[in-house]
Amino acid sequence: MILEARERIKPYIHHTPVLSSNLINDQLGAELFFKCENFQKVGAFKSRGAVNAVFSLSDEECKNGVCTHSSGNHAQALARAAMIRGIKAYIVMPETAPSVKVAAVKQYGGEITFCKPTLEARESTLAKIIEATNATEIHPYNDIRIISGQATAAMEFFEEIEDADILMAPVGGGGLLSGTAMATHYFSPDTKVIAAEPERADDAYRSFKSKTFIPSEDPHTIADGLLTSLGSITFPIICNFVDDILTVKEESIIKAMKLIWERMKIIIEPSSAVPLAALLENKIDIKGKRIGIIISGGNIDLNKLPWIK
Amino acid sequence: MILEARERIKPYIHHTPVLSSNLINDQLGAELFFKCENFQKVGAFKSRGAVNAVFSLSDEECKNGVCTHSSGNHAQALARAAMIRGIKAYIVMPETAPSVKVAAVKQYGGEITFCKPTLEARESTLAKIIEATNATEIHPYNDIRIISGQATAAMEFFEEIEDADILMAPVGGGGLLSGTAMATHYFSPDTKVIAAEPERADDAYRSFKSKTFIPSEDPHTIADGLLTSLGSITFPIICNFVDDILTVKEESIIKAMKLIWERMKIIIEPSSAVPLAALLENKIDIKGKRIGIIISGGNIDLNKLPWIK
Repeated sequence: MILEARERIKPYIHHTPVLSSNLINDQLGAELFFKCENFQKVGAFKSRGAVNAVFSLSDEECKNGVCTHSSGNHAQALARAAMIRGIKAYIVMPETAPSVKVAAVKQYGGEITFCKPTLEARESTLAKIIEATNATEIHPYNDIRIISGQATAAMEFFEEIEDADILMAPVGGGGLLSGTAMATHYFSPDTKVIAAEPERADDAYRSFKSKTFIPSEDPHTIADGLLTSLGSITFPIICNFVDDILTVKEESIIKAMKLIWERMKIIIEPSSAVPLAALLENKIDIKGKRIGIIISGGNIDLNKLPWIK
Repeated sequence: MILEARERIKPYIHHTPVLSSNLINDQLGAELFFKCENFQKVGAFKSRGAVNAVFSLSDEECKNGVCTHSSGNHAQALARAAMIRGIKAYIVMPETAPSVKVAAVKQYGGEITFCKPTLEARESTLAKIIEATNATEIHPYNDIRIISGQATAAMEFFEEIEDADILMAPVGGGGLLSGTAMATHYFSPDTKVIAAEPERADDAYRSFKSKTFIPSEDPHTIADGLLTSLGSITFPIICNFVDDILTVKEESIIKAMKLIWERMKIIIEPSSAVPLAALLENKIDIKGKRIGIIISGGNIDLNKLPWIK
């Protein structure tokens, strides 16, 4: 499915670069390779899964359009994929979604319905939309077509960087992480997969350690892409194919984000900084190792930066 | 000299990428190609000229070190080039230089002397340092070795992008612009060279139009790399080999800078945004044209962004 996803999405997504920084490598005593999905279409890896899902549908399945609930990047990605296929996209977004993400969904022709920023409100609002339109739901992460699409980022990474000791990704709902873990299992089985998550949204960490699904409850983190709970598909994949999950403090996320902005001159969103934050906190021994990090996206409201009060 | 510079500096600088944005192209109705010197060593094109100048010196010429006055990027670049060659670098900086640039000079082992932010203060302070140390002065732009080094950015651009109608660069002291103009003359003679400058630091514009050298007097612009006057070497090259100079408003610089940050997910400094600002102001007809823009650098104090009050 990953190989099929790759061919299916190729015409509509970017092959993103892998970048390094000598200054960051010197600081950490390791070789870091950043797979820059902030340069992906709509500014996030979510384009991969959304395009794969939308183009996997039959004409019959997508004639009434697609719909989803999303705090941001999946919303844009689905609206864009639907626009390319020439179908409608109905998007449920929390009222708290960054204005830049709302504007982008509109730009791709998505029809937005706002709701309270809770999972319950998102799901009930979406149910009403499905009843009214008969659109096909494309879940942001708990969908094997989405996971296969996200997996193509890690697949591309391994084609470019050989002998990586570790590949890291942030974890929210687990779409990127489970895709990364599956791609690593098939294409670079000697590489360990380590996820990172904010302490203040540590449901995946606690679920992984206890091997029991624990939902995300009232998370408060600057990493606004990582607020959601794992899903019934992503959770077992993560339990079976991820080596570890690390948690990080909010101030480390901000520090890691600013370090990447300053040293690499690239714009990443807070969620993308979470794996590097774990390395800055010395959560694992990385001396002399080759470490990949999937930079998940670069969509941030430039009027509100976390280090400017 | 450009060909020699290219071979001389190759081991010590990055071959920077040329990036494009479909969203910006659609907005402007043209094809734009950004030569990203913000990804250059020390975050600016200045590394090219500084390395070329320092490695052009004989052992005798550089035994007492090198020195310069610079508002920022040339200072870092010279300190780094001197560190690589294993010699001292004495740097005169205005008290108003951004803290991030001061810190970077120190990191490369440069010895800093601060002065008032005027050309007179810079020159008199530097004269004292030369008297005391006998170091060799490497001027930030009025030096043919510096100009030849900066020219390699445009040379690389033409190797990657063929049939460009226009190549644009910002103009401060004119080192980048005269190098760009010479490289275009030799390597892509059908391409027009058009410079851009802030209205509030329009000495190069007025000098170019009047064919008479007019110094920069009390300039106030956010584009802090473009405050200096043209030099006795750069001015005649610009008069003879540049097709036009356009001036832009401060608000256009900020708008262009934010557009590049948002759409391309790369960090550029205000000076780099000046050519795009001229296009946003519709200063020239660009419909359907292929336009290169040299992004001069990405060194900016992330704690002070012009669109956040």
